[in-house]
Amino acid sequence: MTLADDPLIELRTRLAEVSDLERLGVLLAWDQEIVMPPAGAEWRASQRATLERLTHERFTDDRIGELLEAAVPATPVDEDLVRVTRRDYDKARRVPAGLVEELVHAGATAREAWARARAESDFALLEPHLRRNVELRRRYVACFPEVERPFDALLDDYEPGMRTSEAEDILGRLRDGLVPLVAAAAASAGDDALVTGGPFPADAQRRLVETVLRQVGVDDERWRLDVALHPFMATISPGDVRLTTRYADDDLDSLFGTLHEFGHGLYEANVDPELARTPLGAGVSSAVHESQSRLWENMVGRSAGFWRWCFPHLQAAFPERFAGRGWQDVHRAVNTVKPTLIRVSADEVTYGLHIVLRFELELALFEGDLDVADLPAAWRDRTRAYLGLDVPDDADGVLQDVHWAEGLFGYFPTYALGNVIAGQLWARITADLPDLDERFAAGDFAPLTAWLAEHVHRHGRRLTPGELVARAAGGPLDPEPYLEYVRAKVAGASARLIA
Amino acid sequence: MTLADDPLIELRTRLAEVSDLERLGVLLAWDQEIVMPPAGAEWRASQRATLERLTHERFTDDRIGELLEAAVPATPVDEDLVRVTRRDYDKARRVPAGLVEELVHAGATAREAWARARAESDFALLEPHLRRNVELRRRYVACFPEVERPFDALLDDYEPGMRTSEAEDILGRLRDGLVPLVAAAAASAGDDALVTGGPFPADAQRRLVETVLRQVGVDDERWRLDVALHPFMATISPGDVRLTTRYADDDLDSLFGTLHEFGHGLYEANVDPELARTPLGAGVSSAVHESQSRLWENMVGRSAGFWRWCFPHLQAAFPERFAGRGWQDVHRAVNTVKPTLIRVSADEVTYGLHIVLRFELELALFEGDLDVADLPAAWRDRTRAYLGLDVPDDADGVLQDVHWAEGLFGYFPTYALGNVIAGQLWARITADLPDLDERFAAGDFAPLTAWLAEHVHRHGRRLTPGELVARAAGGPLDPEPYLEYVRAKVAGASARLIA
Repeated sequence: MTLADDPLIELRTRLAEVSDLERLGVLLAWDQEIVMPPAGAEWRASQRATLERLTHERFTDDRIGELLEAAVPATPVDEDLVRVTRRDYDKARRVPAGLVEELVHAGATAREAWARARAESDFALLEPHLRRNVELRRRYVACFPEVERPFDALLDDYEPGMRTSEAEDILGRLRDGLVPLVAAAAASAGDDALVTGGPFPADAQRRLVETVLRQVGVDDERWRLDVALHPFMATISPGDVRLTTRYADDDLDSLFGTLHEFGHGLYEANVDPELARTPLGAGVSSAVHESQSRLWENMVGRSAGFWRWCFPHLQAAFPERFAGRGWQDVHRAVNTVKPTLIRVSADEVTYGLHIVLRFELELALFEGDLDVADLPAAWRDRTRAYLGLDVPDDADGVLQDVHWAEGLFGYFPTYALGNVIAGQLWARITADLPDLDERFAAGDFAPLTAWLAEHVHRHGRRLTPGELVARAAGGPLDPEPYLEYVRAKVAGASARLIA
Repeated sequence: MTLADDPLIELRTRLAEVSDLERLGVLLAWDQEIVMPPAGAEWRASQRATLERLTHERFTDDRIGELLEAAVPATPVDEDLVRVTRRDYDKARRVPAGLVEELVHAGATAREAWARARAESDFALLEPHLRRNVELRRRYVACFPEVERPFDALLDDYEPGMRTSEAEDILGRLRDGLVPLVAAAAASAGDDALVTGGPFPADAQRRLVETVLRQVGVDDERWRLDVALHPFMATISPGDVRLTTRYADDDLDSLFGTLHEFGHGLYEANVDPELARTPLGAGVSSAVHESQSRLWENMVGRSAGFWRWCFPHLQAAFPERFAGRGWQDVHRAVNTVKPTLIRVSADEVTYGLHIVLRFELELALFEGDLDVADLPAAWRDRTRAYLGLDVPDDADGVLQDVHWAEGLFGYFPTYALGNVIAGQLWARITADLPDLDERFAAGDFAPLTAWLAEHVHRHGRRLTPGELVARAAGGPLDPEPYLEYVRAKVAGASARLIA
């Protein structure tokens, strides 16, 4: 066999092309959110549809299947490449192009309906679209008749290999641990007034955010930071990682949000360069990705060490607000636990319950007897049960998130699973690096980034999410370390209140 | 024949896809120049190569040829579509993919060598690469054995249908008209000190440029303005036109440069929307495009009416510099004629001679006996003959432009042909709209934009460049109106000097 006849070489060439096209899709989306003039939207929709169709065509080409059959992997990386690609390929080939188009179209239509429904707080405007999304997703599930439970097929898109039963078990234990904690914290009425209410001028926020990003390792050589209405991270290539944030006048969420997106970006940026332009060259799952963003946003961004370092910069950015205060005041304020209605502004501890609620409802939609029409009432019931709050209207209830309108079912649980994984990793990291908090206090985040690069980032998709967690954290998925972490947090807050 | 079997419908679908991919290529280039972090360059090269290969593959697909054969155009637009597409298709199919790759690769390599050669003012560093480019372009020419003269094949890529003999005739007459004018102007030593030397702070320039752009019709709905090292215009879609400029501290070139790019952008933005996502939906040739940019940069931007309107804004931007001055002072300064060595900073009148010089040399490379090694000396000789200047070193001579290094031969003449067409259009416009200068003075540019949209822009590629000029200007390509325009300019300057 000559070199040119090696199916592995042709496979790699074709996959590199598909990878390039996928990255172009990311760039198109980034551009649309960040720089495109409004009148470009109509044309951009065509451009994105063309690119997506072409990417799908090239990846699901018969020839890829032949090459996967013929390839004889000679290295461990090639073995992983063939295994992961075959899995992706088989999944992609199972879903008829017509169904994919229907899903995309229904999602776009429902998204518009959702915006109106939320603005008018009228679930009825969304209901038929949501019903259609559920129906289409059932047809999607039917493309995978081998699954034990329907929801398995949905979950697998974001968390490869995870079973619904496993998610139920972990999120159930998380819920049972969080509910009493949140109830206790609610009773003690934490105070975050120091970091809310503003005014926090955008320019000062931006300077603060840039200072923090530089310190944790962001340079102009391969990073960007832009302003977006709904912040996100976009990896255009290993040398081009783009963060976004927004500056609200009345809070400091830009700081935590940017650390969150940085966590996502650092993961992608640190995948072994050898894996670039292959299906292995990306984060392995939504939950593992979210573990990285949550770890930076919360474990780092709300730590004592971080605030010992950051406080002078915060004070310089907002001298009046923080005059006569110390880092301890800010540390306490950003660790306030207080149940609220809206997921995206929830604190670190209550956040998990927002997710469990959503997971349980979407599971009931697909496997139980919950009808779409009954979602608002079910939402209210569970909000009362888990957060102790009454939902005044659907805009602040079932209509607050866009995910279901976009047809994303099975995605929400990965947010909470990300916290769970972050908890496991953090327990291991703080054991491995006992002086971490002191290092943070000195502005030194390099030991942490090195640990994450070695144990998490570099692997890309070579390990499964389960393998990655087992190796990095030393055991299977387990909510207990995360619960211990938040218990310590709540206990600390109570101790401070008593003292 | 059912609707779905109509080859014209399939042809349009396939061409729309190719058009989308081409626009993505423009976006990739824009992004690389304007926002991409430096470390993205290596990966971006792969992404662009993949996209270009795919675009070429889709357009040169056998199926397109079959559809072009089978299509039965039912409307004039469809007739034009089939005719223009067939021409593009035949040309694209003639050039072997291997040669295209060699051309791209040699151009990229030579571009790097050019940057070093120019920095060190050492032509020898570029010479072998330039020789290679010429050799490859000869092989390209050989793909079109039916041309009368080799240079015809090169010129045709930028100016479809134009023959070398026609370009020689027009540019020869232009040269013969300009040389004595420039010599006379040089003797009268115009004075542009008022608008050079600076300091012109970038912020004030930006505000001025934005004011001017808004007045000529740029809105945030479908335009952007960004800063670029080498300004250009990028049309991402009819609803997304992106201008770029740069702000040098010591001159006001940003204003004229932005009007220049606006002229390009307005052309693309005003092509009949019906032609979008087809090969007809773009400007028809490089020279016609350049006629639009030059018309806004010079005929508008250096007119008395424009400065009567703009002067107060200029004064507001730079109050100290223009205190006690009037619009006439600025009008005079921006119309100064003064031979200089560098094309890109040449004034409006001498500019044509820079181009004629390049055209004559590249023609001699391909059809005469000029050897690449003899380019620097030939450059010096002609610079003395046409501009009356001595070239002190090659950095300010033959190495000043990147075009030949990039393999672009036959492109330079379109710059001067653009001026020629602008002169013809301007003669017709000022006859059709006799109060134009008064309208400019009132800040009203709408009559001009309407005229251009009607007579030039909307046609896209439906008319050939020759047909377009014949219809819009009332005759064949002719340098005389442009020469009259510059003669009046030089005479006005002399009259002012005498007065």
